[in-house]
Amino acid sequence: MKHHIIYANHNDGSFNHAVKNKIEETLKNAGHEIFVSDLYAMQFNPVLTSEDLKRLYAGEIAPEIKAEQNKIAEADVLVIIYPVWWTSMPAILKGYIDRVFQYGFAYKAGSNGIEGMLHGKKVILFSSTGQPKEAYENGMYNAMDMTTNTGIFEFCGIEVLDHVYFPSIMTVTDEIRSQYIEQAAEIISKLSPTVK
Amino acid sequence: MKHHIIYANHNDGSFNHAVKNKIEETLKNAGHEIFVSDLYAMQFNPVLTSEDLKRLYAGEIAPEIKAEQNKIAEADVLVIIYPVWWTSMPAILKGYIDRVFQYGFAYKAGSNGIEGMLHGKKVILFSSTGQPKEAYENGMYNAMDMTTNTGIFEFCGIEVLDHVYFPSIMTVTDEIRSQYIEQAAEIISKLSPTVK
Repeated sequence: MKHHIIYANHNDGSFNHAVKNKIEETLKNAGHEIFVSDLYAMQFNPVLTSEDLKRLYAGEIAPEIKAEQNKIAEADVLVIIYPVWWTSMPAILKGYIDRVFQYGFAYKAGSNGIEGMLHGKKVILFSSTGQPKEAYENGMYNAMDMTTNTGIFEFCGIEVLDHVYFPSIMTVTDEIRSQYIEQAAEIISKLSPTVK
Repeated sequence: MKHHIIYANHNDGSFNHAVKNKIEETLKNAGHEIFVSDLYAMQFNPVLTSEDLKRLYAGEIAPEIKAEQNKIAEADVLVIIYPVWWTSMPAILKGYIDRVFQYGFAYKAGSNGIEGMLHGKKVILFSSTGQPKEAYENGMYNAMDMTTNTGIFEFCGIEVLDHVYFPSIMTVTDEIRSQYIEQAAEIISKLSPTVK
């Protein structure tokens, strides 16, 4: 299976970076094909402009957008890795959604209203949080899942396999941090079994 | 009262731009002082980087961040105007939150956990949506309010006066569009009465 890892963190020493590397290694060892979009490394421009929309109306797509759409089109599974900032995703990832998940690529107006155009694909999300899990169990986990999993991915017809949260990332012990990373590897192994 | 309008839309012909102008006019006519952050016009850079954090740890703040923090510090009321994109805010506004609402300015670690640092301030949000209201009444309005109103503003101790949604913005008649704009003016007038 083909996996497209979309990763958004500014720090190569971060927990999220370690999760990204572990998942990449795990998928490679299982024989999967992988494309990685490391948004900070790519210096991805997250600001949707009138220029983007003018191009869209003219039937054109900026090359850096088209390249990302091609990866998504080819992938069976999207793997999204980011730290939760302000109960949502970092702006660089939000803008990736704003710019890449365009009308006519990710969704369209059909005879029964809006129709997702990415049916058949799956997504799994891994997010660290600064706060402990108790801070999100008042309905905030549900709200984050709804605005992210449902409002973005299911809207486009993509099946959400899981949204895994790693709480208290700034304060957990190294042992817990290592367990989190192993847990990410186990989850991705179960969901995307060996194809060798 | 001092109002800080934070506005995020790329199109000067947009509904959101008309709402911004109407609110600005209404507040000025009522004798209020206003600062406007038009994020697209400012070409605000929404990407939080390691450089930002290095500066933060060194006790420094980038001038473009400090200027925004000064406006927020001085304002009694924040007025946030944006189109809902993907059940959230445009990346340029998300990144404004990521970069400007810094640790030590908007919140801090206190003896009882995280403490908001912006108590006493109020916020009102105006958002257009592409979909009709029925599309959000399955809990999505609640989820958007929770991840935005609660997860960002209440987290910092800011009182949320209202989050007003204007549905079906791409397809409503000009008459409804005008009613929406008048409605925005009425709401802001009631919440921020004349000081003259």
